[in-house]
Amino acid sequence: MHYDFELPFKVRDYECDLQGIVNNANYQHYTEHTRHEFLLSRGVSFAALHEQGTDAVVARIQMQFKTPLRSGDSFVSRLALRKEGIRYVFQQDIYRQPDERLVLRSTVEAVCLVNGRLSDCPELDALLGCEAQQEV
Amino acid sequence: MHYDFELPFKVRDYECDLQGIVNNANYQHYTEHTRHEFLLSRGVSFAALHEQGTDAVVARIQMQFKTPLRSGDSFVSRLALRKEGIRYVFQQDIYRQPDERLVLRSTVEAVCLVNGRLSDCPELDALLGCEAQQEV
Amino acid sequence: MHYDFELPFKVRDYECDLQGIVNNANYQHYTEHTRHEFLLSRGVSFAALHEQGTDAVVARIQMQFKTPLRSGDSFVSRLALRKEGIRYVFQQDIYRQPDERLVLRSTVEAVCLVNGRLSDCPELDALLGCEAQQEV
Amino acid sequence: MHYDFELPFKVRDYECDLQGIVNNANYQHYTEHTRHEFLLSRGVSFAALHEQGTDAVVARIQMQFKTPLRSGDSFVSRLALRKEGIRYVFQQDIYRQPDERLVLRSTVEAVCLVNGRLSDCPELDALLGCEAQQEV
Repeated sequence: MHYDFELPFKVRDYECDLQGIVNNANYQHYTEHTRHEFLLSRGVSFAALHEQGTDAVVARIQMQFKTPLRSGDSFVSRLALRKEGIRYVFQQDIYRQPDERLVLRSTVEAVCLVNGRLSDCPELDALLGCEAQQEV
Repeated sequence: MHYDFELPFKVRDYECDLQGIVNNANYQHYTEHTRHEFLLSRGVSFAALHEQGTDAVVARIQMQFKTPLRSGDSFVSRLALRKEGIRYVFQQDIYRQPDERLVLRSTVEAVCLVNGRLSDCPELDALLGCEAQQEV
Repeated sequence: MHYDFELPFKVRDYECDLQGIVNNANYQHYTEHTRHEFLLSRGVSFAALHEQGTDAVVARIQMQFKTPLRSGDSFVSRLALRKEGIRYVFQQDIYRQPDERLVLRSTVEAVCLVNGRLSDCPELDALLGCEAQQEV
Repeated sequence: MHYDFELPFKVRDYECDLQGIVNNANYQHYTEHTRHEFLLSRGVSFAALHEQGTDAVVARIQMQFKTPLRSGDSFVSRLALRKEGIRYVFQQDIYRQPDERLVLRSTVEAVCLVNGRLSDCPELDALLGCEAQQEV
């Protein structure tokens, strides 16, 4: 698997729940933060986009939880982006460190709303270096 | 669609992010709380289960975000449970109130770990009223 | 103690951390939600205020944690408001139910920013029914 | 001001609320994570302590919010520890980077519960290098 971006993290204890493992909702936080840092690495600010009237919104998420993260764990969140029609499809996987054990395998599909309307964003695509491919 | 349980909610402003809509991760919070309240309605406490060495853990989630919730919105979170092999499959959908507009359609698959090992839990199934069906 | 408003809550399991008790940061969530529902009960929407350029921001918080809340606990969050100069001083206390045991005693001081500048808001004060008193 | 420990952070967009600034409750998350990383730097694991029957619990927090953090901001969270009687008093301040502007000034008081009872922990004090001083 080839990824376009990765970000290191460490579990924060408040992210763990009464089972002593990271609460599942936090994996969405990790993957969202990874996407936004990926955007920044390409010169795109999620907050600035919003102020300009362009909102990237998530339409669909699939997550498979493979190994729970615990207090003290370090991990890396990796991302690969492809474009399918007007959808941005992010493959987002998390690996525990240093043993590279797979923690989460997920797919996040986002679309752009410009002033509230579903829209193609060719300038954004150019920055992100993703070319639309024909949907099968 | 027939549901087994429902729980009313109201958006809390801290759940909204800088886009002015509920941050996606909170939908996992809503659906988790709904599952745990459903368990309680059947006499099963998630926390007590944990203390007894039985952990229900989520293996897989699929979510489709249909309409964003906003500050001030009320909504109902509905749940239907079926058993597939050893997996508990929760259909969990959220509807804005009072207009019943679909907000989220999701499927959450959980399994039971007893003292850390994947296990069938017939006593739990009896309480939840779910019978295992043959997987197709 | 006389309170101006109260709101019932139930602990959600995702709010508990690995100590098996509600993580302290959630008490700020509870008290914020209580303030915003209090505002709504007086016809004031926090989100609408923000869109009109008026932001109520918290300047200072004091919290005393008396009894931890746990999975399954119900509680009531109570609020009393007084005005001191340009500061809105909220006494916000939380009581476990049904035994009325004190969980949290807190004071939250907020001020209004109008278009980013510290400001008095007489219209807001009229709605909230709070009269400025001389600071000692 | 002399600090004993510091930790760099970056705002994550999901921590911002509909006002476009970091929601106040997250400052408790930042300061908690800083305390736990400080403990780790001294060889003390909060999670391991809990499993051994010793829980450090927060009794009192005071926070002054000086400058709001926003999407994209980096900051440093600094901590100084002193012992007052059986209380651990953490001075915890947050400074925006790189301009060192003060964001938060806070004091967090914690105590130790050993198997649920308020207790002195001389071994912990030795690791943390804090000597109890007479209370005034």
